[in-house]
Amino acid sequence: MLGLMQQKPLLITTLLEHAALNHPNKEVVSCPIEGGIHRYTYADSLVRTKKLAKALLKLGVDRGDRIGTLAWNTYRHFELFYGVPGIGAVCHTINPRLFDEQLIYIINHAENRFLFVDTTFLDLVERLMPRLPTVEAVIVMTDTGNMPGSSLPNVHCYEELLTEQNDDLEWPEFDENTASSLCYTSGTTGDPKGVLYAHRSTYIHTITACMADVHAFQEADVILPIAPMFHANSWGIPYCAPAVGANLILPGRDVSGAHIKTLIKQEKVTKACAVPTIWLDYLNQVEGTNEGAGSLGRIVVGGTAPPRSMFERFHALGVEVAQGWGMTEMSPLGTVGKLKASMMDLPDKVQLDLLLKQGRGIVGVEMRIVNDDGKELPWDGKAFGLLQVRGPWITSGYFKRDDSPVDEAGWFDTGDVATIDPEGFMQITDRAKDVIKSGGEWISSIDLENAAMGHPGVAEAAVIGVYHPKWDERPLLVLVPKGDPPEKQDVIDYLADHVVKWWLPDDIVFVDELPHTATGKVQKNTLRDTFKDYELPTV
Amino acid sequence: MLGLMQQKPLLITTLLEHAALNHPNKEVVSCPIEGGIHRYTYADSLVRTKKLAKALLKLGVDRGDRIGTLAWNTYRHFELFYGVPGIGAVCHTINPRLFDEQLIYIINHAENRFLFVDTTFLDLVERLMPRLPTVEAVIVMTDTGNMPGSSLPNVHCYEELLTEQNDDLEWPEFDENTASSLCYTSGTTGDPKGVLYAHRSTYIHTITACMADVHAFQEADVILPIAPMFHANSWGIPYCAPAVGANLILPGRDVSGAHIKTLIKQEKVTKACAVPTIWLDYLNQVEGTNEGAGSLGRIVVGGTAPPRSMFERFHALGVEVAQGWGMTEMSPLGTVGKLKASMMDLPDKVQLDLLLKQGRGIVGVEMRIVNDDGKELPWDGKAFGLLQVRGPWITSGYFKRDDSPVDEAGWFDTGDVATIDPEGFMQITDRAKDVIKSGGEWISSIDLENAAMGHPGVAEAAVIGVYHPKWDERPLLVLVPKGDPPEKQDVIDYLADHVVKWWLPDDIVFVDELPHTATGKVQKNTLRDTFKDYELPTV
Repeated sequence: MLGLMQQKPLLITTLLEHAALNHPNKEVVSCPIEGGIHRYTYADSLVRTKKLAKALLKLGVDRGDRIGTLAWNTYRHFELFYGVPGIGAVCHTINPRLFDEQLIYIINHAENRFLFVDTTFLDLVERLMPRLPTVEAVIVMTDTGNMPGSSLPNVHCYEELLTEQNDDLEWPEFDENTASSLCYTSGTTGDPKGVLYAHRSTYIHTITACMADVHAFQEADVILPIAPMFHANSWGIPYCAPAVGANLILPGRDVSGAHIKTLIKQEKVTKACAVPTIWLDYLNQVEGTNEGAGSLGRIVVGGTAPPRSMFERFHALGVEVAQGWGMTEMSPLGTVGKLKASMMDLPDKVQLDLLLKQGRGIVGVEMRIVNDDGKELPWDGKAFGLLQVRGPWITSGYFKRDDSPVDEAGWFDTGDVATIDPEGFMQITDRAKDVIKSGGEWISSIDLENAAMGHPGVAEAAVIGVYHPKWDERPLLVLVPKGDPPEKQDVIDYLADHVVKWWLPDDIVFVDELPHTATGKVQKNTLRDTFKDYELPTV
Repeated sequence: MLGLMQQKPLLITTLLEHAALNHPNKEVVSCPIEGGIHRYTYADSLVRTKKLAKALLKLGVDRGDRIGTLAWNTYRHFELFYGVPGIGAVCHTINPRLFDEQLIYIINHAENRFLFVDTTFLDLVERLMPRLPTVEAVIVMTDTGNMPGSSLPNVHCYEELLTEQNDDLEWPEFDENTASSLCYTSGTTGDPKGVLYAHRSTYIHTITACMADVHAFQEADVILPIAPMFHANSWGIPYCAPAVGANLILPGRDVSGAHIKTLIKQEKVTKACAVPTIWLDYLNQVEGTNEGAGSLGRIVVGGTAPPRSMFERFHALGVEVAQGWGMTEMSPLGTVGKLKASMMDLPDKVQLDLLLKQGRGIVGVEMRIVNDDGKELPWDGKAFGLLQVRGPWITSGYFKRDDSPVDEAGWFDTGDVATIDPEGFMQITDRAKDVIKSGGEWISSIDLENAAMGHPGVAEAAVIGVYHPKWDERPLLVLVPKGDPPEKQDVIDYLADHVVKWWLPDDIVFVDELPHTATGKVQKNTLRDTFKDYELPTV
C-alpha cells in the first residue's frame, strides 16, 4: 500500500526558487574574469537564470542535451548550474586543466552541442574545435564590451543572449531521476569516465550536506567554495547555499592564498572549502600578520589528505577544520571528520589523530570494508579492506559505458583500501591497486612509504609489490636517497621500529628519481613495469 | 535522459541501521510505564526492533496492514516506529485522549488488525473491543512480570513475543512511496481523517529537520521529544535522533513540568519540543530556583501559538526558543522561527515581534497566500489570505476518502489565514472559517479578539461574522465582562485606538460565558449558530 503524500519531484531549480522567494536580498558575490567584484541577489539570479533558460531553448537545446562549460567559479557559471538542468538538459562541467587529448575525448564522448566558456578558455577551444564535430556553437561568458575576437564561425556573447530574453518562464516539471549534470573523472589509466548526476541525487545530497553534523550551512553563513565548479560541482556547495539562503562567494579565476585571504576578510566568509594546497597558501598569507582568520569559523578540506600541521595551524587561528572525503562518483560527499561528543574531552593529540582520519559516515551513505573474497571486515580500526559505498547519491554506472562499477548488491568499489574504527571513523590506508598482497594478508604501501620517509637518509620513497613464489607478492622499497645512499640494513633496522616484522621490505633499491604524474603523484604503474622481473633476494 | 545514480529507496529503517552502525553506544532513554528509567543503545534497539519485526510476521502481519498503537513515548513505541514500517506495514498511532466514539471510528476506519497498547490503556481497549470487529489481538507493551490480567480473549505480552524471536532479519526492500505510518486528525467538525505518511516523505522530512537552520540536530545533542508520538509522530523526532546519532530521551507518561525538569537535568538534555502548556509548567518549576535550565540550549514550541512572555522567560534562562508551525498533514514541519543574520542587531522588542510570528519557510515546503478567488497575494506582511502549502512531505489525500484536499496544482489548503512578510516570516491571523468577510475584504477575528481582551472590563472575547445585507458579513463582538459590563461605546472607543475603523464591530453582546471545546478553544460554530439570526443595528 502506498502512502498518500505529494509526489513533488525533487528538482534542482526548487532550491534557487526557494532562495529567491525566502531570501531575496541575500547575495551571490563573484570575482568575474573581467575583474572587479560582481554582486547580485538570489532574486536577481533567478531572473537571469530564467532568461538563460529561454536563451538555451531559443538556441535549440533539447532535453537530455549535454551543454559543456569551461569556466571558473562565477555567477554566470552558477546560472548555468540551474538554467541548464532547469529545462531538462545536462550541465557538463569540463576540467580545463586536462590535456588536449583528454578534453577532445570528453567533449566528443559527451557529444556536447554547445560550449559555454570563459574568455580565458577561448584560445583553448579554438585550438580544439577542428576535432570537436558535435559542437555547434561556443558561447563566451562575458558582455559585449569584453567580447574577444574569434576565428570560430559560430560564437555568441552570453550577455547578448540574455538581453534578448525576458524571465517569463515556468520551469517544466519532469521525473526527478532526470540527468542534471555530468562530470568526467580522469583516472591514471583508461579513458575518462562520465558521472551523470540526477536532480534527485543532487537534491538529497544538498539537504544532507546542510545537516548540522555535515557542513551545518545556515542562512547566517557566508560560504566560499574554492573547489572548482568542474570538480564534482564544487563539492555541491552551489546547491547548498541557495537551499539555506546563505551568501555565496565565488572566487573566480584567482585562488591564490592572497586573493582568498582578501575575499574572506572583505566578504566576512564564515565557511569555505578547498584542497590542502590552497589552504597552505592561505595559511602562509595569514600567519605572521595581526589579522587572524577573522569571521572564518570552519573550513572543509578534501581532495587529498591534509597534513597534521594544517590542523594545528588552523586551530591556532581559531578555525575548525573538517576533513571531507568523497569522490566524483559520490556527488561527492562520503564522510566528514567531525568529532563526537564523547571525544571532546580527549587530549588534543588524540583528537588530532581522529581528525586526520577521513571522517565518519553521513546518513544516506552506507559504507563497508571487504577482503578479496568480498567478506565483510570488522569496524575495529585495524582490519583494512576494500572500501565500498552505497546510497542515493552514488553512481550506478558511467555515461555510455556498459561495464557496471557496482556489484549485484549495489556496492560501488571506491578503489581505496581503508580501516573503519568502532566509532565509524574511516581511514584510507592505500589505493587498492597499490596494496601488497603477501600470503593472503595485505600490506599498506602508504604506511611503509611514510615510515621510510622518516629515515634521515631518504628523500623520497615508494613501495611496490614484486612477485614471490611463496607469498605471491612481497614489498620492494624504492628509495631516492638524500646524498649518499644509506646502508640497506640501516633502513631496515629503522623500519623495524615502525612497522610489524612481516611488513618489512624484502629488498631496497636506490634510484635517482621516481616517475611522477603531472599532479605530482608517484606513477606506481611505471615502477611496477620497471621492476616486473625483479628477483627478490628472499626467493 | 535519466541520470546514472543509485536507485536506493529512501526507507525508514535505514535511519536506525545508520545509528546502530555509526553510533552504536548512543542511547535511547525511556521512562517506562512500569516506573524507573530504561536505557539501551541504538545497537540494542536495532536487535530488538528486528525481533519485533519477526514477531509481527509470525502474528501474520502482511504488507499494508495497519497496526494500531495506544502508547506513550517509550522505547517500545520507538521500536514499533521502525519494526512495523520496516516490514512494509503501517504504524497507526492513535490518540488515546479522544472520545470513545472517535476511537471506535478511527480503529474501524483504519481496519486495525492488531493493537499495541500500554498497560494504562488496556481498560480502554477492553471497553471498546466489542465494537472493534477488525482487531484480532491486543499486545500489551510490557514484560511478563508486569502483565495485567485481562477479560479479552486474545492478549499477548510484548516482551514474550520478542523473547521467542532472534534478530536474524534482513529488512525487505520496497518502493519508497510505501505507506509507513498513519495518524488521524480530528477537526472540530466531521469524521477524523487519516494522514498516511510514506517512507519517502518521512525520510526527506527527517533529513530536512536536521538542517542547521531547522532543528540543527547533531550527534552531540540529547533530544527530548515531549510531543506525544501519536501527534504527527512526535513531530518526527524519533526519526531525527537516530539519523544524527543523538541520544533520545522518551519521557513516558508523565509530562508534568516537574518530571520534564528532572529529565532535562538528569540526562543533560540540549533540545526539546512541546506545546506551550508543557513549557509554561516547566518554567514555573525552574524559575525561582538556582538551577536554571542547565544544558537546555534550544526548545521548539508548536501546536498553538506561545505567549510573548514565554519567550521572555526562556530567554532569561539563556534558552533559545523557536516556534515551529505545521500540521499533521505536513509531517508536520512547515515553518520554523529562526531569525536571520540581518535581524540579529534589531532591538529585543522587534526581534520578539518576529519570533512571535510562526516562522519562515523550510526548503522543500512551498508556501503561498491567496484570496477567495485563488489569486496570489503579496509577501508584504500586511495582505492576509488563505495559506496554502505544497511539497514532498505534505498530504495528497486522506486514507480511504475520495475527496482531495489539494487543488489541481497540488496546493494543500491549510485552513489558516495568514500574512507573509518580505523576509518570508509567516503569521497566522485567523482560521479561514472564522475570518469575517466584509464587502470582499477580510477582517481577522483573532486580531479583533486580542484587541478587545486589552480592555480592562473584558474577561474573554469572541468575534464572529453576522449577516449584513450590504457587506455580506460584519463583525459581532461577544464579550464575557469582568464584573459589571462596560459601556459598549467605551469598548468601541478603546478598539478604535487598536484597529482600523472599518474593522470595528457593528455591535457588542455581553454573555455570562462562551462555549469551549475540551481543549479550551472557543466553539465558534456554536456561537455562529446562536447568533445566526442576530440583526445588527447597522442593518
